Amino acid sequence: MKIVIDAFGGDNAPLEIIKGAVKAQEHFKIEICLTGNENIIKKVAKENNIDISNIEINHTEDVIPVDETPNAIMKEYNNSSMALGLKMVANNEADGFVSAGNSGALCVGGTLIVKRLKGVKRPGFAPVLPTFNGSSFMLIDGGANLDARPEILRQFGILGSVYMEKVMHRESPRVALANVGTESHKGGDLQKDTYALLQESPVNFVGNVESREISNGACDVYVCDGFTGNILLKNYEGVAKSLSHTVTDIFKKSVKNKIGALFVYGDLMKFKETMNTDVYGGAPILGIKKPVFKAHGSSNATTIFNAVRLTIDYINANVPQVIEDSFNKLKGIK
Amino acid sequence: MKIVIDAFGGDNAPLEIIKGAVKAQEHFKIEICLTGNENIIKKVAKENNIDISNIEINHTEDVIPVDETPNAIMKEYNNSSMALGLKMVANNEADGFVSAGNSGALCVGGTLIVKRLKGVKRPGFAPVLPTFNGSSFMLIDGGANLDARPEILRQFGILGSVYMEKVMHRESPRVALANVGTESHKGGDLQKDTYALLQESPVNFVGNVESREISNGACDVYVCDGFTGNILLKNYEGVAKSLSHTVTDIFKKSVKNKIGALFVYGDLMKFKETMNTDVYGGAPILGIKKPVFKAHGSSNATTIFNAVRLTIDYINANVPQVIEDSFNKLKGIK
Repeated sequence: MKIVIDAFGGDNAPLEIIKGAVKAQEHFKIEICLTGNENIIKKVAKENNIDISNIEINHTEDVIPVDETPNAIMKEYNNSSMALGLKMVANNEADGFVSAGNSGALCVGGTLIVKRLKGVKRPGFAPVLPTFNGSSFMLIDGGANLDARPEILRQFGILGSVYMEKVMHRESPRVALANVGTESHKGGDLQKDTYALLQESPVNFVGNVESREISNGACDVYVCDGFTGNILLKNYEGVAKSLSHTVTDIFKKSVKNKIGALFVYGDLMKFKETMNTDVYGGAPILGIKKPVFKAHGSSNATTIFNAVRLTIDYINANVPQVIEDSFNKLKGIK
Repeated sequence: MKIVIDAFGGDNAPLEIIKGAVKAQEHFKIEICLTGNENIIKKVAKENNIDISNIEINHTEDVIPVDETPNAIMKEYNNSSMALGLKMVANNEADGFVSAGNSGALCVGGTLIVKRLKGVKRPGFAPVLPTFNGSSFMLIDGGANLDARPEILRQFGILGSVYMEKVMHRESPRVALANVGTESHKGGDLQKDTYALLQESPVNFVGNVESREISNGACDVYVCDGFTGNILLKNYEGVAKSLSHTVTDIFKKSVKNKIGALFVYGDLMKFKETMNTDVYGGAPILGIKKPVFKAHGSSNATTIFNAVRLTIDYINANVPQVIEDSFNKLKGIK
């Protein structure tokens, strides 16, 4: 098995990516290839005493900036470290790809370079988010598609269900539709029609779920259109981060508070870790022919290591094939 | 000035509502009228030694259940405590109305009983939410309308701006459009067209703002369609509540943690209070002819007191007239 990793994606590239790659190679005994500027990778590794002799490097000098428009990956950044990784999986030179770079570009490149599975209308960007009770759920779509239609949302439910079962080992994942109320008549036409389609789909559909319930683990897959999903995702991350900073600030505020911190430090850190969006490694791009995994922009070595672990499960479970089979079984979905 | 309050709205009705009404009457020296079952109101007041001799009661035996469909207020619940209050303001028997009951019913009743201001296409349900830095922002629309169009969203920006300036005393309120990125070309047609309209509107439009920024106080008014707004609102409340429970649980977990709590208790409680959605009293229904205020479903006496305070400012600033004037000035918005 060979996994290719974008050495120049994310805020902490390339050092943390290199560290994570080496850690994953040593632990999982698989082939790892880094894409990006070979001279810089070697220089950074040397400066930090990291042995990269077991890591392959696919050289390119280009990097797609994180704030570049997604389509640029098909044009002026078609030779970037991200594009190169996508091409490797598309050409069967690698089994899976991990990048902590530009999410939009990875969705576009995943769709246009790796290409959609037969029958999939739109791939979904599907982050797995932590809940307060120590579990997690998948949000699909987190922003890959702004043009939502009922049949696309139904497909998201199926894509998410397969991933949560096969990669996250969740038994009979509870698929829920994001809505403004729990009753089946709630929402606009998009929600009502999606509700009807999900009811007759081969997933464990638990109906409409309001967004106040998701942080308590009310479902395993939360289906919504990409616009709403993106707003929800960024709010979830924003609130979790603000909270973390505020609690830290309180404990640093005075000597009295610092003493208090000594007593509860362990449990508070455990809680902060529970809500750490890095733990689950990030978000798969679901519905394309090969495993492509978006690691969080702030990924460190551990995040990259976790992303590789999930990608290995993704490859071993043959998720793309399972998805294609599920879609074949479903009449009239194409 | 007379303010009418729904005595049977919310989880803690009627006791907390009665307490809040009496507190507000004594503090602000205004006329207060409670709608609802007179016998029960008098009985509860007597049992709790509350003097309601200065409070008027408008009797009805009907209460609209919190989970009833919004339109029921125009049909089988047209004589409910909520409908009665709305009719009083519509008929100029009171200057403003506060209810902690069914949000959807209050939006429908506000629109159909109190009626829209001239030029307003859709009233907005506009909760004011706390930020981590101790401030707040208005989310409009929080779920009153699922059919969003650019001209409706533009109007929400104007409605929100007037309220935040006149009632929340915010100078030149920063109006932002909820979007998946900050650049003007981001989002779907709805966002692009709304962006263009807001740019030429008489508000301090600060452009697109991503939802991860709102909990840090990036804007005073956050404009989005009612579906997205409702999902965002409930997630915001859900995460804030889960967080509060989790931190409390950690401090109760062990003797060691309880000791730690003694040291940081004051500052943590201050923080919990900062993020308490009850402090701002709730959400006005903006764009209708009279001040109608939705207090949080979990309102206690303090929440009701705060809601009355905001309603007084709302009445004194003559917000409906200011809104109508703003809309008259704006060519081509009708």
